[in-house]
Amino acid sequence: MSEFRHDPVQKRWVIVAVERGRRPSDFKIEKKDKGKAKFCPFCYGNEDKTPPEIFAIREAGTAPDSPGWQVRVIPNKFPALAIEGDIGRRGLGIFDLMNGVGAHEVIVETPEHELHMGDMEVDHLFQIVKIYRDRIADLYKDERLRYALIFKNHGEVAGASLEHPHTQLIATPITPRTIAAELDSAREHFLAKERCLFCDIMNQETALKERIVIDTEDFLVLAPFASRFPFETWILPRKHTHDYTLSSDELLYSFAETLKDILYRLKTALNDPPFNFVLHTSPSTIPRPGKSTYWSTLPYDYHWHIEIIPRLTKVAGFEWGTGFYINPTPPEIAAEYLRGVGQDTEVEE
Amino acid sequence: MSEFRHDPVQKRWVIVAVERGRRPSDFKIEKKDKGKAKFCPFCYGNEDKTPPEIFAIREAGTAPDSPGWQVRVIPNKFPALAIEGDIGRRGLGIFDLMNGVGAHEVIVETPEHELHMGDMEVDHLFQIVKIYRDRIADLYKDERLRYALIFKNHGEVAGASLEHPHTQLIATPITPRTIAAELDSAREHFLAKERCLFCDIMNQETALKERIVIDTEDFLVLAPFASRFPFETWILPRKHTHDYTLSSDELLYSFAETLKDILYRLKTALNDPPFNFVLHTSPSTIPRPGKSTYWSTLPYDYHWHIEIIPRLTKVAGFEWGTGFYINPTPPEIAAEYLRGVGQDTEVEE
Repeated sequence: MSEFRHDPVQKRWVIVAVERGRRPSDFKIEKKDKGKAKFCPFCYGNEDKTPPEIFAIREAGTAPDSPGWQVRVIPNKFPALAIEGDIGRRGLGIFDLMNGVGAHEVIVETPEHELHMGDMEVDHLFQIVKIYRDRIADLYKDERLRYALIFKNHGEVAGASLEHPHTQLIATPITPRTIAAELDSAREHFLAKERCLFCDIMNQETALKERIVIDTEDFLVLAPFASRFPFETWILPRKHTHDYTLSSDELLYSFAETLKDILYRLKTALNDPPFNFVLHTSPSTIPRPGKSTYWSTLPYDYHWHIEIIPRLTKVAGFEWGTGFYINPTPPEIAAEYLRGVGQDTEVEE
Repeated sequence: MSEFRHDPVQKRWVIVAVERGRRPSDFKIEKKDKGKAKFCPFCYGNEDKTPPEIFAIREAGTAPDSPGWQVRVIPNKFPALAIEGDIGRRGLGIFDLMNGVGAHEVIVETPEHELHMGDMEVDHLFQIVKIYRDRIADLYKDERLRYALIFKNHGEVAGASLEHPHTQLIATPITPRTIAAELDSAREHFLAKERCLFCDIMNQETALKERIVIDTEDFLVLAPFASRFPFETWILPRKHTHDYTLSSDELLYSFAETLKDILYRLKTALNDPPFNFVLHTSPSTIPRPGKSTYWSTLPYDYHWHIEIIPRLTKVAGFEWGTGFYINPTPPEIAAEYLRGVGQDTEVEE
């Protein structure tokens, strides 16, 4: 149903649908479809409209795929990757490709169709971030899979095709190049200094203060020095740890508090902007056949974190052409503004 | 007015506005501003509303910065970079930064406010692509500047803040990392094979045929094997050449024909979609102080080309988080469709 194809120029993998692709007419239909009343497959009562659930937190005595759940994990109905089959690495002349093997799941965060993650109870958000951990750990047992990507699209501009609060998980047989670049930078810094790159950044930012948004015992939220986007923020655990799946319940409770706090601040400061967040964590570290040297490169020098990107500006030709970005809002100003948003501030209408 | 800031994690430069950044209230205003009647600073009679022109093709006897021009080059009124000053490379603890030095120009392509580039006369488009060549060559004389990026945003979704047909040029003191990655791939391939990577791709694609859109004596238009986006296309010169500024008038006339052809086909097939195109060409190759080894690495093994990206799908968290892409339209289907669009096909309404 899909293929991983490798671009020999940019050395980048692309997932290409190969069987039934979208033709020009499909894009035209999409444009006209806007005003239509929407059916929501993620609301109570429509559980039979999704594939059977993989996991759910639900009231005692309720049956799978029926109402009564608080958080529900399902396979994506239109998955980018298929869980069955071999990877099938092969060449086509100068090109490389492999089968579109992987997992594509949806974590329906709540039965409430309009509940913003920044407005959830911490106890509820705690259940969600524990599910992130447990789903990644479960998929990392599959030796074909090398990376599990947790990401959230909120709002149509940010790529959410459904409004109902949900997070997606895509697990792939390759480590994505953004993550690979970070692993390389972290390794290089560690080899030179015997220190973690991210810990060093946190130490410097804590001393300078101007880009810090939230500073708790367990987590730091900062607007990164070279922010690509206005109001971009990162959440990093204070204590060095490379792998999200190793997080204790205690740490994840604290993480839920901080995640709620920053998402609430962004919602309040920017009038509920569209946003994405992406979890950056260690690739799978299980031994693989024919990879005897693998253990010597365990990414202990990496540091997991979440990157949150409000989608306030449009990405234009300059960004696609160069891989660098023009950011009209200095992170110092973004951080100052977000620091000033109290938990009790009213949302501006 | 702006700074280049280096992200030590992704090793990526970002241009950050530092003096007067956009605050949350600016983004809110933008949302409400949609319906407003628009004044166009690029139309005849408004030449005094732009900075003085750098160059123009105009009727004999007409004065600079007055009507009578056919193509007009001006400095961007709100430049991302400033032409005056030193680069001022410096460190800030773990971070690197330099001054926002560079050029930011606008090529107003025509006095006609609504003329699509795919509908222009070839002779007119020929003037425009010659100006691309001449402006890059001129800026490459400035030894502070290393790369000149020519790009076009068409349509609001593609990042065009003004509707009037225009191309932008941003010249920077660093080679953007997308280009640097391509230079590296081309060099690596050449060292291994003594052949050009792009020429090899063209040879394979010409033999396979299925991803070819247009094939002329001078140019090949193809849908790349690992297309990131539906209907992404590249235009490559048939004859190996690394540097757009070395193009003869004859080659550029042929280029204008091909550029018009593919843009007309995309407009027709996809109902005038928003799009970006970006010229990928050699960095500046003038010798620089303290760079005595520079001439040994002249990028003769590179191959200039243009990448055209219709903006039909939204870039979501997955793409930002991983640097790879999900493309729902196989390039083979896109190429087949675009091959079928004749120059005389009526635009579907």
